[in-house]
Amino acid sequence: MRAVVFENIGSVRVAEVDDPAPKDPTDAVVRVSHAAICGSDLHFLHGKAPIDPGHVMGHEAVGTVAAIGEGVTRSRVGQRVVVSFSIACGACWFCSRGQTQLCEDWRNLGAGTFGGDLAGAQAELVRVPFADVNLLEVPDDVDDEHALFVGDILTTGVYAASLADIRPDQAVAVLGVGPLGFFCVQAALAAGATVYALDRDEARLDLAASTGAIPIHVGRRHPVSTLQDATRGRGADVVIEAVGSAPAFESALDIVRRGGIVVVTGVYAGETVPLQLGVCWARAITLRFAGICPVHAWWERAMDLVARGAIDPIPLISHRLPLTEAPSGYDLFDRREATKVVLIP
Amino acid sequence: MRAVVFENIGSVRVAEVDDPAPKDPTDAVVRVSHAAICGSDLHFLHGKAPIDPGHVMGHEAVGTVAAIGEGVTRSRVGQRVVVSFSIACGACWFCSRGQTQLCEDWRNLGAGTFGGDLAGAQAELVRVPFADVNLLEVPDDVDDEHALFVGDILTTGVYAASLADIRPDQAVAVLGVGPLGFFCVQAALAAGATVYALDRDEARLDLAASTGAIPIHVGRRHPVSTLQDATRGRGADVVIEAVGSAPAFESALDIVRRGGIVVVTGVYAGETVPLQLGVCWARAITLRFAGICPVHAWWERAMDLVARGAIDPIPLISHRLPLTEAPSGYDLFDRREATKVVLIP
Amino acid sequence: MRAVVFENIGSVRVAEVDDPAPKDPTDAVVRVSHAAICGSDLHFLHGKAPIDPGHVMGHEAVGTVAAIGEGVTRSRVGQRVVVSFSIACGACWFCSRGQTQLCEDWRNLGAGTFGGDLAGAQAELVRVPFADVNLLEVPDDVDDEHALFVGDILTTGVYAASLADIRPDQAVAVLGVGPLGFFCVQAALAAGATVYALDRDEARLDLAASTGAIPIHVGRRHPVSTLQDATRGRGADVVIEAVGSAPAFESALDIVRRGGIVVVTGVYAGETVPLQLGVCWARAITLRFAGICPVHAWWERAMDLVARGAIDPIPLISHRLPLTEAPSGYDLFDRREATKVVLIP
Amino acid sequence: MRAVVFENIGSVRVAEVDDPAPKDPTDAVVRVSHAAICGSDLHFLHGKAPIDPGHVMGHEAVGTVAAIGEGVTRSRVGQRVVVSFSIACGACWFCSRGQTQLCEDWRNLGAGTFGGDLAGAQAELVRVPFADVNLLEVPDDVDDEHALFVGDILTTGVYAASLADIRPDQAVAVLGVGPLGFFCVQAALAAGATVYALDRDEARLDLAASTGAIPIHVGRRHPVSTLQDATRGRGADVVIEAVGSAPAFESALDIVRRGGIVVVTGVYAGETVPLQLGVCWARAITLRFAGICPVHAWWERAMDLVARGAIDPIPLISHRLPLTEAPSGYDLFDRREATKVVLIP
Repeated sequence: MRAVVFENIGSVRVAEVDDPAPKDPTDAVVRVSHAAICGSDLHFLHGKAPIDPGHVMGHEAVGTVAAIGEGVTRSRVGQRVVVSFSIACGACWFCSRGQTQLCEDWRNLGAGTFGGDLAGAQAELVRVPFADVNLLEVPDDVDDEHALFVGDILTTGVYAASLADIRPDQAVAVLGVGPLGFFCVQAALAAGATVYALDRDEARLDLAASTGAIPIHVGRRHPVSTLQDATRGRGADVVIEAVGSAPAFESALDIVRRGGIVVVTGVYAGETVPLQLGVCWARAITLRFAGICPVHAWWERAMDLVARGAIDPIPLISHRLPLTEAPSGYDLFDRREATKVVLIP
Repeated sequence: MRAVVFENIGSVRVAEVDDPAPKDPTDAVVRVSHAAICGSDLHFLHGKAPIDPGHVMGHEAVGTVAAIGEGVTRSRVGQRVVVSFSIACGACWFCSRGQTQLCEDWRNLGAGTFGGDLAGAQAELVRVPFADVNLLEVPDDVDDEHALFVGDILTTGVYAASLADIRPDQAVAVLGVGPLGFFCVQAALAAGATVYALDRDEARLDLAASTGAIPIHVGRRHPVSTLQDATRGRGADVVIEAVGSAPAFESALDIVRRGGIVVVTGVYAGETVPLQLGVCWARAITLRFAGICPVHAWWERAMDLVARGAIDPIPLISHRLPLTEAPSGYDLFDRREATKVVLIP
Repeated sequence: MRAVVFENIGSVRVAEVDDPAPKDPTDAVVRVSHAAICGSDLHFLHGKAPIDPGHVMGHEAVGTVAAIGEGVTRSRVGQRVVVSFSIACGACWFCSRGQTQLCEDWRNLGAGTFGGDLAGAQAELVRVPFADVNLLEVPDDVDDEHALFVGDILTTGVYAASLADIRPDQAVAVLGVGPLGFFCVQAALAAGATVYALDRDEARLDLAASTGAIPIHVGRRHPVSTLQDATRGRGADVVIEAVGSAPAFESALDIVRRGGIVVVTGVYAGETVPLQLGVCWARAITLRFAGICPVHAWWERAMDLVARGAIDPIPLISHRLPLTEAPSGYDLFDRREATKVVLIP
Repeated sequence: MRAVVFENIGSVRVAEVDDPAPKDPTDAVVRVSHAAICGSDLHFLHGKAPIDPGHVMGHEAVGTVAAIGEGVTRSRVGQRVVVSFSIACGACWFCSRGQTQLCEDWRNLGAGTFGGDLAGAQAELVRVPFADVNLLEVPDDVDDEHALFVGDILTTGVYAASLADIRPDQAVAVLGVGPLGFFCVQAALAAGATVYALDRDEARLDLAASTGAIPIHVGRRHPVSTLQDATRGRGADVVIEAVGSAPAFESALDIVRRGGIVVVTGVYAGETVPLQLGVCWARAITLRFAGICPVHAWWERAMDLVARGAIDPIPLISHRLPLTEAPSGYDLFDRREATKVVLIP
């Protein structure tokens, strides 16, 4: 089959590789109809995370079950499914409590050695371990493209909003409205809140505004005073930090009202900030670090929201390319000329 | 009347001052039967917070209503009541939502200019503004001494435990079991959890153990590995940080399990710690800074717990002195020879 | 002043009565700008509930504070306020827990002896006991007409939706979309749910549909199968019963899915239904009888929803009449020719 | 192997039957170390529910995994496990939401045709479908006898208590303290509540009292007034109905306070009661019909409570018999001379 493989730092290519087959009785193989390029794929491209040449890339995919092992009971051949970007066992202490992101056997499709050496999803076929856990059936009234992001970033937005237990009478600020923030905005709007989208990128702000958020260009207006003006001087009830940088984190602490909550869903690695304990204490702030999304605990609710049109992923897709043109898809995305690239095998 | 007044840095004395009377229609005056000396009174004694000579000290008191203004409807003369250490208006945006610690007109008994210039409660009589909000009736089956701490530190413990939404199947670590930690331990036990009391003071550990907690002397056993051993390698589901120091805060982050919650109830002022965002993110930690307790939203539940014996404050009281001996009470407490001193006017 | 008073069964008239003044220090008097006629006013008109001739009618009003007693601290003369239809003490065991509808001193404006003999609000002036509890300030950006129903039926809808803890991924059926159901629909929509409005009155269905609900004419389509078709055979996650009749109650039990929740917000008196315990048990149903709304615990959230346009009461108002024309307003409403009549003193 | 089989109405016997083996790849076979006789086994004995002669009885068992199909990933041969009394698929809409009692493929061990024709657990070996879903590992520090009831009635008690969201400051009445009520009592105590055990059987009341509940003999004291006296006139915050009879249901409605909650966990079939809608409405009651317990969603928490001693099942066991003496075990239990009989193969 054809697949997008890592070549070396800075380049991927489309190669012919062996077709995968179920190895364990709980495996399934999915024939991919649409795969997407994610921001974290660029980490591998740039050499920030190790991956071997020839490793198949990608972890966002939707398609049809092509084969199942003997122990698979939930999926059946021919079923349309979306694939979870993270592979959980479904059985350990954390999985049984819905915290599949803390799975004791946590793996990641297309993420090299540290991801558990699983071939990725930017390919004609992808093998999915523990298929009963890591595949979700797509309802008849949802097409493949609408379902694609439920396996990853769309559900991450739903999860982030849920961590703040958003209510309709609340003012929610989403800091950073790239692909993740775009879905956080829609999830907060779906929960009925008044949502402020903060960014300095015009196109992203326009996209957020088109879903119903109030755009705030943080290069032109001061976010703290803007939010205070909108909330009779208090600040946002909830801030969702969807950037993943130290300045964004610190800005979130400034924007949230006393007694409010900050959800940190932007991805962090080695960043450190000086935390003023007295200020957080006096302001009675709650800080929830989302971590990686436990997709499996939330994707059914996310799919329901897509099915009824409360969350619409389509405006995020700027490019649709055949799988064979994946290298130019990576280029476009890396140069920020694409908001989201979908590859069609 | 006689009252304990600030003299100068390092000394208080008992002085004759004017009897208070209701000034505003919503005021009450309470005849104090028992007052206590609190750790924060020492801040004034040591000059860490400004207070004028002659200012009446103290904010923990129980007694009987002696006089009420015309607008008081809930309290009546002769009623036994406990006094809230903090004086809330009961009517602003935050008060209406139960967050009385964020009251827009927040004041504090016996706390000098920054507390709103209200005379304190270590006296024969104390004036209490917004009496309907800031006094709680003591049920017949609870005596004054049992009720005394419901106006402050006992309820703070109940509130801290509630912030973590403690369940019976959880392992809770209370870091620091001084007076505040002592009540956090009991509140967590009342919620059914397995509770670990961490300290390096033998007497405090004994006191915590006597209520049913498992004592861990952090000078002799490593808290992280001890908690891990007790939880099949995971760490505590909930950590309540009741010390108020940067090392304690950092230790709390080490002890909590992935996906767990840290409640910060120890009092902080200018401390700053470097917060490793990536570690918090990967571990999916929730940090709840309790801030000052919204006593008014929680003290009825706290009083119920005292009434039925689920929380017993009496073991904490090491000394009972006549009000006239307040200076030696301050001395004992300041030298850490007393766990809690009660003054009887 | 002029006021609408009960004359005898079947008739009200506009009479000259004494101006009210504060009697207790916690009273306020409100100059009414808009009052409304409520379905329960008709109970008095029809003699179903006892009321003396000459008693001032009505309990839905908005206006400006004209006078306050000495003990009032939250309201001030000149403040725009909405009046709670029910008068709570704010201080008893139930009030302190936010269950003001169970207040041990519960009273009702304009409801005769059983309501505590308080003159009603369809008048130029109305006396409001415990003004700090029973008046809510109207924000500058909300006009009087938008605020009017926050004191009663609008907030009742918000409360009913909250009892079901509605989430965006849920299917909610509102049974009966008269004035109360109209607000239940909007509250459920504000929480992000897919909402089905069930009724057999075209005009009511049109009104509900105009807010975003999916109308189902129960005379033409079978409600159970219609809801099942819409939910892949399961039935509604939540049913809000807003009619108040035995058949409606029984229909609610049929429409809700296994494991779902029925909120009973329609008003019941002597109705009895045979409850099949085994069916409820096997289907794991939750039944929440809302009872009278604890307005005071929910009206700030309701006002926020009005302020941001998430709930719009205006389409419900079919008639605006001067207070002097109240008798014809009662006629129109009684003959169901008006959805809601507003009286302007 | 030897197994307890149904003979005809009124009698069971121990017979030699074929050893079970995994049929589907997701099956496991468990070697039973302890099985129990449950109240619902008597329904089959008495002919109230249909079962064929020769069908193996029983659904409460603990033991060791003897064989697994190829698709089993969570269980391994030699693992100590407790068996869920109900067999869920783990994959349907309801299972994915933790409502495994509403599983679209719900089955029941040892329950004849209506249970899905699965052989029961009162045998040397039992086949368990969807083993990864329906077996729970027993921790090293819990012995088999302590784990036995986690697969059924103990966890049902934990679930019932959870439905009421019991808090430490609440008064909980458990109506009927047979085996199910015994565990409801302990679960409510574990959540910190004050628990009243209501029954007219001295031995059951003694057993409940030994765990910390306050016994009330309903033949000697009036339950409504007794509970009111204990709660300053209000009534119980929570009532758990664990009898399963119409009079018990009606009594629960009388005992609960206004604004309180009734959990119906007793088993109902055809019973009907006249429900006074106006009374329930005016008192703002919540009624939660528990239905069958979704064991799988709660048994890990239940096992934790057993492991730490918060729930102790041992006092409930009155008889331990070899499997070969099962007929006399059924006799003893049927004549109410045994509280719980354990069979040891």
